Amino acid sequence: MKEKIIIFDTTLRDGEQSLQSSLNTQEKIEIALALEEMNIDIIEAGFPISSPGDFKSVQEICKKIKNSTVCSLARCIDKDIKIAAKAMSQLNHFRIHLFLGTSKLHIESKLKKNFTEIQDMAIRSIKLAKKYTDDIEFSCEDAGRTSIDNLCSIVEILIKNGVKTINIPDTVGYTIPNEFSKIISELFIRVPNIDQAIISVHCHNDLGMAVGNSISAIQSGARQIEGTITGIGERAGNTALEELIMAIKTRKKMLNFFTDIKHQKIYKTSKIISKICYISIPINKANIGANAFAHSSGFPQDGIIKNRKNYEIFSPKSLDNQNKFNFTSRSGRTAVKNRMPEMGYTEKDYNLKKLYKKFLELADKKGQILDYDLQTLAFIKNHSKKTLNLILKNIFFHLNLQIKQIFTLNYGVKIYFIKLKFIPKMEYFRGYINLYKKLLKLIFYLKKFKIKSIHKKKKIWGKVYIIAKYQNETFYGKNTSQDIVTAIIQSMINILNNILQYKKIKKKNQKSLIKNLLR
Amino acid sequence: MKEKIIIFDTTLRDGEQSLQSSLNTQEKIEIALALEEMNIDIIEAGFPISSPGDFKSVQEICKKIKNSTVCSLARCIDKDIKIAAKAMSQLNHFRIHLFLGTSKLHIESKLKKNFTEIQDMAIRSIKLAKKYTDDIEFSCEDAGRTSIDNLCSIVEILIKNGVKTINIPDTVGYTIPNEFSKIISELFIRVPNIDQAIISVHCHNDLGMAVGNSISAIQSGARQIEGTITGIGERAGNTALEELIMAIKTRKKMLNFFTDIKHQKIYKTSKIISKICYISIPINKANIGANAFAHSSGFPQDGIIKNRKNYEIFSPKSLDNQNKFNFTSRSGRTAVKNRMPEMGYTEKDYNLKKLYKKFLELADKKGQILDYDLQTLAFIKNHSKKTLNLILKNIFFHLNLQIKQIFTLNYGVKIYFIKLKFIPKMEYFRGYINLYKKLLKLIFYLKKFKIKSIHKKKKIWGKVYIIAKYQNETFYGKNTSQDIVTAIIQSMINILNNILQYKKIKKKNQKSLIKNLLR
Repeated sequence: MKEKIIIFDTTLRDGEQSLQSSLNTQEKIEIALALEEMNIDIIEAGFPISSPGDFKSVQEICKKIKNSTVCSLARCIDKDIKIAAKAMSQLNHFRIHLFLGTSKLHIESKLKKNFTEIQDMAIRSIKLAKKYTDDIEFSCEDAGRTSIDNLCSIVEILIKNGVKTINIPDTVGYTIPNEFSKIISELFIRVPNIDQAIISVHCHNDLGMAVGNSISAIQSGARQIEGTITGIGERAGNTALEELIMAIKTRKKMLNFFTDIKHQKIYKTSKIISKICYISIPINKANIGANAFAHSSGFPQDGIIKNRKNYEIFSPKSLDNQNKFNFTSRSGRTAVKNRMPEMGYTEKDYNLKKLYKKFLELADKKGQILDYDLQTLAFIKNHSKKTLNLILKNIFFHLNLQIKQIFTLNYGVKIYFIKLKFIPKMEYFRGYINLYKKLLKLIFYLKKFKIKSIHKKKKIWGKVYIIAKYQNETFYGKNTSQDIVTAIIQSMINILNNILQYKKIKKKNQKSLIKNLLR
Repeated sequence: MKEKIIIFDTTLRDGEQSLQSSLNTQEKIEIALALEEMNIDIIEAGFPISSPGDFKSVQEICKKIKNSTVCSLARCIDKDIKIAAKAMSQLNHFRIHLFLGTSKLHIESKLKKNFTEIQDMAIRSIKLAKKYTDDIEFSCEDAGRTSIDNLCSIVEILIKNGVKTINIPDTVGYTIPNEFSKIISELFIRVPNIDQAIISVHCHNDLGMAVGNSISAIQSGARQIEGTITGIGERAGNTALEELIMAIKTRKKMLNFFTDIKHQKIYKTSKIISKICYISIPINKANIGANAFAHSSGFPQDGIIKNRKNYEIFSPKSLDNQNKFNFTSRSGRTAVKNRMPEMGYTEKDYNLKKLYKKFLELADKKGQILDYDLQTLAFIKNHSKKTLNLILKNIFFHLNLQIKQIFTLNYGVKIYFIKLKFIPKMEYFRGYINLYKKLLKLIFYLKKFKIKSIHKKKKIWGKVYIIAKYQNETFYGKNTSQDIVTAIIQSMINILNNILQYKKIKKKNQKSLIKNLLR
């Protein structure tokens, strides 16, 4: 029989406390509801003593959450426990999460106590917390650096006093997998009443080991994992729960565990958290990154076409994420061959050998190849160097761009504080396509498209000069910037503005013409 | 005696092939030089057969790199090996990295061969490669899913044929630490000539285990680690080398290993790669993220003030990164108390109890508290609710902002394809401070600052209305946007433009006045 791993999410506590800007109640509720929707067992909603705003957030979350257990953090201090209980008082069942440093370092230099005093503080706090709930979790802070003798001794005392969940946090992300796994194993060997509590682990990622340590702890007996979605948290963050959950699912045969998490909700939840917390998800983040299921190079693309399992251990569909092929000069012939029929081309329409050669040429120049480029290459049978350059010139909107200066006030005062990144992901392409349609509706032609780099004040500036033709009229756009893409876009905007103005004037003239005729 | 771990960087190969846009030669050279500067042992520069551009990049990198060993990838195909050797031919010493699938899945469904044919392919390719160099690395692709019998048998054959480095890649990021560690241990037990080669590992992060697996492999005998700086690479990426390197350094007593890496260069190199590859480094990325050494919540801030080691396992200075305290409503009294003297305030200047209460109030409203806010709170002795609101209104530039629409053409045509993120990191604050100084130079006063949300087309729009006074003249700014921050900034820009125009006209008038007087 597979055993269940309890998933404890602390995105709203350890995650939120690490943000550069704390969240408001509404934002926290939105995240809590997303977590409940994916079936998280325990939601740590906050640390109510920390501020009136956090207290209120926990209160409001308790009103909304029906299925998950809500939990609040409290130090081993009376007022912390009372406030935590008060914040959750409207619930019939809730968890209080007590914590206290148990490592020599924390006891002596942070708490300025000795180990016996620590034990007394813990017992007194548990007694107080039990007045409010029977669901008490206790964290031995900095357990990763606590002597194993002390750890075993305090865990035994905690369980004896009625703690249901004992958390062993690697607070500073110091341990490595086989070391952390051994700590958990030792507890199971040496603590006589260990079977009366759930052992939980809470890992930090300072050395990049949070997920590795968590999975190793499960193999040694831990049955609750704490972490956050996307891995946010103090410093280098907590265990990325989505990674841990998918590891348990993917390796279920070997590990023999399961979680109650709805995997299909992982991707959506990560998007919500990313949006609300203003954190970007790196493209290569496991499971939820834009590239997590992308295959870019020739040999994996070839392999995936032959059999998905060659380079994929679970399907992106299991998380509601999607597959993607990145076409760059690292892409192989097979990938190109495979893409063409997907776009509706038959083998008669193009010569694969020639197409692939041109594809590599264009890709080396341009970096990324989109379907549009591929179609153009297939469509234009005799691609001269001139044609390639033409394509290169017309597709500048695909480029990555990073602009550090956006708002230019009149009279040369510039605001430099903004960084802009245009990463060509699908959602932006949609934006691009809409724009492109708008351009196409205007049916204007580029007569000249000149890019020049000039040296000015010891720096390189890009100079752009565009001439466009629209309905027999000629329009000019030019711009100089230290960022060539800014210069291109600004030039294009000039031209578009001019064309629109021209259209408006023309319309106005037509109207007055009609008016005059009707007179 | 500590043993050395060889660091093999594949940012330019496995990392680059995963980018949404491939890099050009100049960009690759810049990265290669940064890698060499941090003392990377082996730089995998590319996969020369993949495109003419990549071939050229490898050639150019070979001209620049003096100390690191340059390596190129090649399939077990003659032309791959010849092209790889040709690309590096100007060097006296270089490495050819051969790879071939050894798992049942790869052999049958990708390569359509049997195991004996695979062995023959490998031997033939090694022979060819040996004509060009004696430094041959061989990767048993998908080793993580290769049967241990087959893996032992092929590794023995490879070593017998003169391969100096045997790489065991977990190509699809499928294994977990104790499982991967066991694969390496088995090789050391069962392969008789294992001592004649360096065992290398190359892990992928699909289940979040890349770093955990790599460190576990070292404990079982691996002496070369492959990965990339920042962890970029196919799908969920490769082992983040900076995490692995810092783990080896931080846990040197337990592990008894070292690397030759210059740790102080890690942060700088990650910045270069981030910039060139257009990849953002998440704030919570271990070692190199903006938050990796930030302490946000009350109890860790308190702990770190008492003793850095309470919440820090190595100093950010060891990587040339820096420490940071994030002040939010999760920050404790001690952190605030500690910050004040750092800014030059003595205890006489403020009442800590009152200051902290107001601090929490403002932080709950505003999210993040900056030094400027703290100073204002300390400065204004009797802060009424009105004062707080005034502060809130004047500091909008601190806000996180995410604008999806930037360029507004005339006549209502809007370009929506741009996403903008203003993450309040130190480098941006510098920008902000400059801007603020500019504003202060103008000494204008906000008379009115109204924000209203309105419903339009079933969506919520933010409406901003600002009245400012400058030299007895009144200026108006207003704007409506679906993003309130955009609306605020646009309104402010209106006002600034108007003030600047007013100044210019005034100056002009003064000039003509003088001119008239001189006449």
